[in-house]
Amino acid sequence: MPGTAEQVEINEVVLRDGFQNEPGFVATDDKIRLADRLSRSGIRRLEVSSFVSPKAIPNLRDAAEVFDGIERVPGVRYTALVPNVRGAERALHCRVDEVNLVMSIGEQHNLANMRMTCAQSLAQFSEIMQVIAGAGIFVNGTLATTFGCPFEGRQPVDRVLWAVDQYLKLGIEGITIADTIGVANPRQMTAMVSTILRHHPGLALTLHLHNTRDMGLANAIAAYDAGMRSFDSALGGIGGCPYAPGATGNVCTEDLVHMFHQCGIPTGTDLEALTAISQDLPALLGHAVPGFVMKAGTSDRIYPCPVQPQGQSPA
Amino acid sequence: MPGTAEQVEINEVVLRDGFQNEPGFVATDDKIRLADRLSRSGIRRLEVSSFVSPKAIPNLRDAAEVFDGIERVPGVRYTALVPNVRGAERALHCRVDEVNLVMSIGEQHNLANMRMTCAQSLAQFSEIMQVIAGAGIFVNGTLATTFGCPFEGRQPVDRVLWAVDQYLKLGIEGITIADTIGVANPRQMTAMVSTILRHHPGLALTLHLHNTRDMGLANAIAAYDAGMRSFDSALGGIGGCPYAPGATGNVCTEDLVHMFHQCGIPTGTDLEALTAISQDLPALLGHAVPGFVMKAGTSDRIYPCPVQPQGQSPA
Repeated sequence: MPGTAEQVEINEVVLRDGFQNEPGFVATDDKIRLADRLSRSGIRRLEVSSFVSPKAIPNLRDAAEVFDGIERVPGVRYTALVPNVRGAERALHCRVDEVNLVMSIGEQHNLANMRMTCAQSLAQFSEIMQVIAGAGIFVNGTLATTFGCPFEGRQPVDRVLWAVDQYLKLGIEGITIADTIGVANPRQMTAMVSTILRHHPGLALTLHLHNTRDMGLANAIAAYDAGMRSFDSALGGIGGCPYAPGATGNVCTEDLVHMFHQCGIPTGTDLEALTAISQDLPALLGHAVPGFVMKAGTSDRIYPCPVQPQGQSPA
Repeated sequence: MPGTAEQVEINEVVLRDGFQNEPGFVATDDKIRLADRLSRSGIRRLEVSSFVSPKAIPNLRDAAEVFDGIERVPGVRYTALVPNVRGAERALHCRVDEVNLVMSIGEQHNLANMRMTCAQSLAQFSEIMQVIAGAGIFVNGTLATTFGCPFEGRQPVDRVLWAVDQYLKLGIEGITIADTIGVANPRQMTAMVSTILRHHPGLALTLHLHNTRDMGLANAIAAYDAGMRSFDSALGGIGGCPYAPGATGNVCTEDLVHMFHQCGIPTGTDLEALTAISQDLPALLGHAVPGFVMKAGTSDRIYPCPVQPQGQSPA
């Protein structure tokens, strides 16, 4: 029913998850220009960068400069990934609106990605909470590999519920469940989202999808139907996790927005503006990007007919 | 619920819809070898070629040789597209199991694609039915541009229901609704499939999807949930209609089968065999193909963990 569906929130992650694994460094000025264009596209939540060690992810070494350079449009939440206490201090200094903490559901992936056990991650989150306490920063926690780990396979739902509980006990206010390596399927999605929301009605829950096996949009609409109202996505469908083999491609922002709009589900964003920004990505990055709508146009696109009826009568 | 879901049928169209628009001619022997491999992959319905004018689609000029050369595996239906009476005579001579007739829902697309009005198409179908009467050939009719026409936009559902009625009155036994240019969305899909099956319970209905705007798999699972049990798809996600601008890429067979299997929906096909065939397509065609699972592997894929826990204790 177009017009009657509940709105979704799009959390644009191209500047962080999109750029972190790019072969080349995207110039700071280009990042700032991109962020400013996104701020004017109706996007209301924007992951600007990660306060990770510049050695670990050199592409995001300019996190502070980017935060300093961007326009802060009222109504937009400017967020950053924060992997440790040092990162939290930098985020505080840069006046981020929201920090995003990350732990993997799978112990082995957490070890590979964060060099910590899950228990060590949770202990560190506790320290981070103390660092930012009272600063008015919203705290979101991501559960990476929620739908499957590249090293351990599918994780039990009970393990996810346990991790959600740990996050909430620490005072984390919003939770992102992440299909880090793009293994989720629509049935698993329905079950996962329903189960979490049944245990935690009203939870500020976000879904982070990768399109690795082309199930991104199928998972998104299945999640919406199970109650999900907030989605991470990256312009052009770029991105990937350096520690998750085969994890190429976040779900593509403009393809996701296009599907929602076609389904009559409002996103509050300007699809034409988003597509225009995305169409500039190949020149910026020096390579093609996976997005579909940026190439094919919207479903409403009309072409001139090459053949005209000329005196033909029905047989 | 894995194991309890109703099985779907996969109708492999790579040899027809996949190859018709390729820049190069695929050698007849390669087509025969591909058909024979597909016949042993659990595929039960295989569109082998089109008895179209060799001038219109030179890539399929060897339809008769391909039919003569392939192994006829019991239990597999070997089908062909038939655009006119001459094509029906050739199909009869080649002992096809099923013919596929095509008319577009949009008058302008039918004119561009078939050089006929819809009324002329229906009159011709009537002649074709007389040519093949008594030969024991199953007749399927495709409704192209069911979900939207590149020249006229979205078509009214009543127009689709009218066309279904016309087909059934002519004695056409199965009907394929085709998203020829990849514009359908999951909500539209649910409504369309439900409406048709409510008017015609038990109808042998097939869905033909293109992945032009990345909604192919989302549409497939929405259609399944609305009662669809038969799906066209092309290995590697290749294909496109020469008269439908932007209609690149059928929904990819192995990606579709992978999603269904992950969702616990049986297809009767061997995903590993299908993926192996698909992985040979780039060498055969001389270019990359859009499929995802052929590159990423299945969701169950497990990698060795690059980091091992060494004396780390929970903090």
